[in-house]
Amino acid sequence: MAALASTLTVLDYAAVAVFGASGALAAARRHHDIITFGFFAAVTGVGGGTLRDLLIGAPVFWVARPDYIAVCLVGALAIWVFGWGQGRERLLLWLDAVGMAAYAVVGALKAVSLGVPPLSAVIMGVLTATFGGVIRDVLAHEPSVLLRRELYVTPALAGAAVFVGLDAMDVSTIVAGAMGFVTAFTIRAGALLFGWRMPGFPGRAT
Amino acid sequence: MAALASTLTVLDYAAVAVFGASGALAAARRHHDIITFGFFAAVTGVGGGTLRDLLIGAPVFWVARPDYIAVCLVGALAIWVFGWGQGRERLLLWLDAVGMAAYAVVGALKAVSLGVPPLSAVIMGVLTATFGGVIRDVLAHEPSVLLRRELYVTPALAGAAVFVGLDAMDVSTIVAGAMGFVTAFTIRAGALLFGWRMPGFPGRAT
Amino acid sequence: MAALASTLTVLDYAAVAVFGASGALAAARRHHDIITFGFFAAVTGVGGGTLRDLLIGAPVFWVARPDYIAVCLVGALAIWVFGWGQGRERLLLWLDAVGMAAYAVVGALKAVSLGVPPLSAVIMGVLTATFGGVIRDVLAHEPSVLLRRELYVTPALAGAAVFVGLDAMDVSTIVAGAMGFVTAFTIRAGALLFGWRMPGFPGRAT
Repeated sequence: MAALASTLTVLDYAAVAVFGASGALAAARRHHDIITFGFFAAVTGVGGGTLRDLLIGAPVFWVARPDYIAVCLVGALAIWVFGWGQGRERLLLWLDAVGMAAYAVVGALKAVSLGVPPLSAVIMGVLTATFGGVIRDVLAHEPSVLLRRELYVTPALAGAAVFVGLDAMDVSTIVAGAMGFVTAFTIRAGALLFGWRMPGFPGRAT
Repeated sequence: MAALASTLTVLDYAAVAVFGASGALAAARRHHDIITFGFFAAVTGVGGGTLRDLLIGAPVFWVARPDYIAVCLVGALAIWVFGWGQGRERLLLWLDAVGMAAYAVVGALKAVSLGVPPLSAVIMGVLTATFGGVIRDVLAHEPSVLLRRELYVTPALAGAAVFVGLDAMDVSTIVAGAMGFVTAFTIRAGALLFGWRMPGFPGRAT
Repeated sequence: MAALASTLTVLDYAAVAVFGASGALAAARRHHDIITFGFFAAVTGVGGGTLRDLLIGAPVFWVARPDYIAVCLVGALAIWVFGWGQGRERLLLWLDAVGMAAYAVVGALKAVSLGVPPLSAVIMGVLTATFGGVIRDVLAHEPSVLLRRELYVTPALAGAAVFVGLDAMDVSTIVAGAMGFVTAFTIRAGALLFGWRMPGFPGRAT
């Protein structure tokens, strides 16, 4: 469990940093100032987990531990100073895939550990993994990642469902978490590498 | 009270299903995949009640009872499989009116029962009835229902105010709820049938 | 402390009224009806403080004291009836600057008084000061104030940081609050009068 806990902690901070960087890059696209960089980095980095904690009635994770915010701000500063991220969107997409897969498991794990029923726990995984990016896009007044046809919610959902399902079958947390992570990451990787997508609504749209 | 409670429960699930369907239809318009259908259905179906519960400090209603989410997902699946909803926008508008009127009363009732002051209870009714649709529109990157001139917030406000007012005068909950529901539904029906609207701001807009 | 408390209360209501008015003006721009005026006024007026209270786990301030909402509605009604605000955008910008500076301090003070760590308390000041306007813009389907290059988040951040920093050095609350208010207001005034802005991201945006 100790190894799991520290792995999860590392994944947690890594996911916050990566999502924070993607928020800062959204600000970079419009040549915003450093404060706006930081604002977008923080909102994107902790937004999904914040929503999860509000919904399950847990104290919001970063309020008592603002080092999570500091991680976002350092990420934003790095992008500002080094111009990091330019021409590296591809790398960022892959880091984002790692963050998303980690958050899908971590979000569901926190919910399960607080006694949330399985379906709701899966949803918490999905929201933790995806809502930071959704809030980033809404605040940037851009169509959200939800509206793109590429697979993003789907891998988060699959990863969270695999984790919660295995956990309910008394598989050890570390194995269930690893399986959930691999599931989410693999599907997302398929989307990035091979353009995997789900069939769209076949009916006549109105 | 038992009859009221079961009537309210039926209205509650019906409202969730109808709002969920309207969320799925928003996704259908852009030919999204089944996962996005489900995401929009769930957000729209439970969004208003979620905001209410967060504001009044109650446990978010669907987290411990995810059958509400399941109802949304079944609704989304039905629309996907049967193409239901196409050419039936009119029917959906009427079902939506029933859902809105039910939520205005149910939302205010929950607030009143937790000791929330009357004005705030009315607001909880309005938010429960309207915010699922607002969140749906924001996430779909479309102008929200708030921005249309047709009456939508107004009937919810009137219904919730009638309910809270009668309840404060010790009218029985079932009568107050019925009056609130009829008020909200009638005004909305007038908007749908006869184009009722309130006068717009007469001043020179800036 | 009593003088501080009453000063803060006055600033608090004043900030709610001013932000409420800015919400109503957003509705005025599209000739909405009086209910939509009130809706936007309330959301804008109390939105930032609502988010703060949710994040720090405090009861949402206006739910038990809906006179805050009443203040917003009276402000919206005044704009409707008197056409107030037309040709007075400049006055409103200055009132908004007062409200923003007040909220940056009040928001941070509430967080500090509940034992929130300094960095998180600064963020609560920023969110209280700015998020009502952000929600207003998102609901009005307009690019949010965050996306404008003029200084808005920056003065709120500076004011909240000055207050929290002085407070942590055991400066009396009234002095720390006054310094924070003056800092925020001065920077915002510089932006309004002289077009102060921060340098934008110098890199090649993607």
